[in-house]
Amino acid sequence: MILFNCDYTEGAHPRIMERLMKTNMEQTMGYGEDEYCERARTAIRKACDAPDADVHFLVGGTQSNLTVISSVLKAHQGVLCADTGHINVHETGAIEACGHKALALPCEEGKITAEQIQKEYDLHWSDESHEHMVQPKMVYISHPTELGTLYTKAELQAIREVCLACGLYLFLDGARMGYGLMAPGTDVTLADIAELTDVFYIGGTKVGALFGEAVVITNSAMKPDFRYVIKQKGGMLAKGRLLGIQFLELFEDGLYYEISKHAIDMAMLLKEGLREKGYPFFMESDTNQQFIIVEDGKIEEIRKKYGVTYLQRYDESRSVIRLCTSWATKEENVKEFLSDM
Amino acid sequence: MILFNCDYTEGAHPRIMERLMKTNMEQTMGYGEDEYCERARTAIRKACDAPDADVHFLVGGTQSNLTVISSVLKAHQGVLCADTGHINVHETGAIEACGHKALALPCEEGKITAEQIQKEYDLHWSDESHEHMVQPKMVYISHPTELGTLYTKAELQAIREVCLACGLYLFLDGARMGYGLMAPGTDVTLADIAELTDVFYIGGTKVGALFGEAVVITNSAMKPDFRYVIKQKGGMLAKGRLLGIQFLELFEDGLYYEISKHAIDMAMLLKEGLREKGYPFFMESDTNQQFIIVEDGKIEEIRKKYGVTYLQRYDESRSVIRLCTSWATKEENVKEFLSDM
Amino acid sequence: MILFNCDYTEGAHPRIMERLMKTNMEQTMGYGEDEYCERARTAIRKACDAPDADVHFLVGGTQSNLTVISSVLKAHQGVLCADTGHINVHETGAIEACGHKALALPCEEGKITAEQIQKEYDLHWSDESHEHMVQPKMVYISHPTELGTLYTKAELQAIREVCLACGLYLFLDGARMGYGLMAPGTDVTLADIAELTDVFYIGGTKVGALFGEAVVITNSAMKPDFRYVIKQKGGMLAKGRLLGIQFLELFEDGLYYEISKHAIDMAMLLKEGLREKGYPFFMESDTNQQFIIVEDGKIEEIRKKYGVTYLQRYDESRSVIRLCTSWATKEENVKEFLSDM
Amino acid sequence: MILFNCDYTEGAHPRIMERLMKTNMEQTMGYGEDEYCERARTAIRKACDAPDADVHFLVGGTQSNLTVISSVLKAHQGVLCADTGHINVHETGAIEACGHKALALPCEEGKITAEQIQKEYDLHWSDESHEHMVQPKMVYISHPTELGTLYTKAELQAIREVCLACGLYLFLDGARMGYGLMAPGTDVTLADIAELTDVFYIGGTKVGALFGEAVVITNSAMKPDFRYVIKQKGGMLAKGRLLGIQFLELFEDGLYYEISKHAIDMAMLLKEGLREKGYPFFMESDTNQQFIIVEDGKIEEIRKKYGVTYLQRYDESRSVIRLCTSWATKEENVKEFLSDM
Repeated sequence: MILFNCDYTEGAHPRIMERLMKTNMEQTMGYGEDEYCERARTAIRKACDAPDADVHFLVGGTQSNLTVISSVLKAHQGVLCADTGHINVHETGAIEACGHKALALPCEEGKITAEQIQKEYDLHWSDESHEHMVQPKMVYISHPTELGTLYTKAELQAIREVCLACGLYLFLDGARMGYGLMAPGTDVTLADIAELTDVFYIGGTKVGALFGEAVVITNSAMKPDFRYVIKQKGGMLAKGRLLGIQFLELFEDGLYYEISKHAIDMAMLLKEGLREKGYPFFMESDTNQQFIIVEDGKIEEIRKKYGVTYLQRYDESRSVIRLCTSWATKEENVKEFLSDM
Repeated sequence: MILFNCDYTEGAHPRIMERLMKTNMEQTMGYGEDEYCERARTAIRKACDAPDADVHFLVGGTQSNLTVISSVLKAHQGVLCADTGHINVHETGAIEACGHKALALPCEEGKITAEQIQKEYDLHWSDESHEHMVQPKMVYISHPTELGTLYTKAELQAIREVCLACGLYLFLDGARMGYGLMAPGTDVTLADIAELTDVFYIGGTKVGALFGEAVVITNSAMKPDFRYVIKQKGGMLAKGRLLGIQFLELFEDGLYYEISKHAIDMAMLLKEGLREKGYPFFMESDTNQQFIIVEDGKIEEIRKKYGVTYLQRYDESRSVIRLCTSWATKEENVKEFLSDM
Repeated sequence: MILFNCDYTEGAHPRIMERLMKTNMEQTMGYGEDEYCERARTAIRKACDAPDADVHFLVGGTQSNLTVISSVLKAHQGVLCADTGHINVHETGAIEACGHKALALPCEEGKITAEQIQKEYDLHWSDESHEHMVQPKMVYISHPTELGTLYTKAELQAIREVCLACGLYLFLDGARMGYGLMAPGTDVTLADIAELTDVFYIGGTKVGALFGEAVVITNSAMKPDFRYVIKQKGGMLAKGRLLGIQFLELFEDGLYYEISKHAIDMAMLLKEGLREKGYPFFMESDTNQQFIIVEDGKIEEIRKKYGVTYLQRYDESRSVIRLCTSWATKEENVKEFLSDM
Repeated sequence: MILFNCDYTEGAHPRIMERLMKTNMEQTMGYGEDEYCERARTAIRKACDAPDADVHFLVGGTQSNLTVISSVLKAHQGVLCADTGHINVHETGAIEACGHKALALPCEEGKITAEQIQKEYDLHWSDESHEHMVQPKMVYISHPTELGTLYTKAELQAIREVCLACGLYLFLDGARMGYGLMAPGTDVTLADIAELTDVFYIGGTKVGALFGEAVVITNSAMKPDFRYVIKQKGGMLAKGRLLGIQFLELFEDGLYYEISKHAIDMAMLLKEGLREKGYPFFMESDTNQQFIIVEDGKIEEIRKKYGVTYLQRYDESRSVIRLCTSWATKEENVKEFLSDM
């Protein structure tokens, strides 16, 4: 079986494994207070051009989302997001379990707009009984989105402006950040994201690490006591250096970008190949997730040899499937798949 | 000013006030363990034809909703409801604050259908990664709905069947129950509701009482320990007899129905009058809430003399307003309003 | 049966009932936005000599405690309290259900000290791994305490100073406030309490009202959005005027003090009588709760005619019982009880 | 610097690292549904002599505690534990953040007794107002405890009996399980623990793994839907196989016991050496944590060369420090430390 289901089917990039191996018997302090974490923080601040940012390392995406959101919202406040947003659909109500409502907005291909946010904000505050409704206080976006799409810099700037004007925190989920940064045609850099959001994270789990997300907080109001919330929510890794070592390896000399680029190359190879073969696309994606519409019988056939993710029914006889590439995808496997299709 | 904003603009029905007055200096035990509560429970069980039901008295609707829902759902379970449902929109995220997601379904005029519930249930369980999503475990409906509409007995039966088949609890919010039971054309009785749901409540706040909702639990799995949750959520009234006395007065000899009937008569008078005058209706309602579409300028004028609730914009120049009657509405006020319109 | 179990065995003071009766058919806006609430707020601000305070009316004590505490604490913060504190023992974990730990301190007769608070604060912050522990951020005291004792003004001032120095909010539960203010020998006034705390409430349920607690917020940082939390926690009474009318009657011309004084007179009569008869006291209380140590057999006998509350076992053959007086206690009943003892 | 602070200063046992290395580029399904996890589950079931147990792999201890506890308790239920219990002191209120009160019992050296549990249970249910208090429903113990002590088999059996009689779930935190199982003089085996509890976990983080805890559920009532809660609480590792591989290596051929034995040997070497040198012990521990009482000046001196954990002040001039050994402790380091002392 060759798996295109998702972007976490292998372990970690060999260089990461080697470094973990090399440092294995060193003794360090726990809970992220070691030198590797400190060096990784410095590397990430530099990559983000955000010298004053706080950087925390967490193990996974859902954990990062619930920790960030619950660290800043008060009891009666909620978070605006796309109705396809990961926090709204695929985290088993993690945000609600922390007491907060995900205020879902209908979306086009995974993205929400500055206009929608402004409208929702106005709707809330103009209501005579606004105290009877959850107060919007944060905006959650993912980049790339769950559907592989990307915000443009202008779109992010517009969202940022609305957030500033309305007193909303802007939180960007970058679980697949690398694949967004290296996508053809994007005009959004890591420094842009650091500048235009209050808090975001850089995904490692899906981009070369065994696991790990680097949460970057630029809004100083959100910085105090964040480690308390990490601990409370079960996210404080005892051997925190494992996260530090991985992110240090990824950001010390640009490995993160390099391997992300490979995944994008593979995705474009796949995309072009499928387009040539006439498969219709469900979404126009320039990142590592590709969504195509396939006959149900064909899907069954594909699955005999390849792992793919079933997304949803498209029409009576066809469904949408997702194919992912990653830092680990082998060109020969993509070619074999294309040839089989 | 004459208020048609809502159905809780006055105090309580005079008979209730008299009984509170008469019993005022009696000494009773607290927390609903007095004789009046016991007698009221018996009267309600009888009215519901549910001799084995547990009956608890709570102060308000949001409190009842959050207490019932959090008493039965586990951490990872959510409650299906109409997207217009009170718990989804107008309770400041009370359900989410208890850790549970309101799983909103798009609705027609405040109602959801057995088909929708079945579909949502199937969608959940057929998903390969259903553990990544909130598990639907309860259905919340309101009767009358927030938009004044009513379920038919057949509709309730269909919903009940799906719930039984899928292992979903069915919870009916009856904050305006009386106005539903006495609506022209309804074929749903209180006994039907007791038979077709697992738990529901009979609203007193909007139907003649100073305050109070009678929660009726027929599903024996939901009965144990309910008083713990009432206490934890701040809903255990020290002088519980105040609730007992009010519900006893309402259900001892049919006062609840009688005064509900009056509200419906007033609503029908209002409805017919407005229809004759050519006001378009936003919803077809046979209960005590009437929704009409009015020119914005006209609304401003109306509000000089009458209290009405602004619901939402209808088109560029018109909005929807809500008018409520209640047990306390005076016929002369309705007539004066109609004449002014 | 004559009940001395608690201070909420009767309805409301007759003057309150009359006013509720008189205003019953008036139409007002809901949710505490009526004129009676406004006037009651003004009267309470005046009584507290706190012209800038925010005043909110809630139905009960547990509700007030959980609403106040959850409105201000962040996810990782907890509330210091006596281990006998109501929030720690008798609210079915209401605070924990809102996500916050009650940080219980061992106490002498229901009271905690400035020294204890300082020590606990220091212990937390001096710990190398303080992020692994709940951060103390609020102090909860009750006055009178659950055991009938009172803080002196000097004690409150000392606690206040520690709280200011440590950045802790000071919250005072005044469910039995009136009985504290009128206790013989106390040097604490309502204005003192308003000056020395960030937030507190004045109990109505146990002091003449049918129900109701007036939450007074003097710390301006705690004022915004409080109504959202009231609504979310199920505490926003639809017919809010019921609370306004009651507190207006209690504070318009000093009724609150007058009836509290009566309860204290009755308590002192009881105390002196029991002392004369040689009953040992479990606590020295100058408020409306008296705790005596009685032979088990004797308790059984007492309970044939009187309601009393069993507190705890004292030794092998004796237990502690609580006797309460209130605004409604009849002198003849106290005398009859004393004579029977 | 040589660190004796804790038992997670190094990476993982070399055999684990090798296996992670060897399997690194294999493709597997995510979220613990791979073959390695399945094989590890089988190995653990066998080691526990519990063929029907459910086994889940989580990343850390706090995460395991909050996931297990919140998966089974209802809103109004709490968990009995030692006042020194990890969940009560060192998890930043993680249990309370899930809505549940940790019901702390005073303890002797980290352990609680069957008698205490029975008494607390009886106290709750005999109280006339038990609904006003958190209902005890689970017992949490740690083995070894946070103070290095161990339960005997007879003690565990007695606790088990009380739990069965009272309908309490028994949950055992085995973060340092291996060091308990290999302690001199213990009569408790892994199979005993599986038989005598409803749920427990086997710690990997502190016993040879990079991270990871294996939760073993033997009570079938606790099995359904556990994966939902793992996901909701942020504990579902995308590359779940990392946990499977590590536990497979630990339990396939007894590595877990072997390396635990080494830690105990080192601890006994340390203990005997310190005893000979006349250092008084704070606790009598036969596991990998040793607690000694040292002059404050001496601690300062020690810390120039060695990492140790400050526990608490003992008297005016002395404090308690903790020294840990682990699977990775080098004999030469222990000897050097002893010689320096």
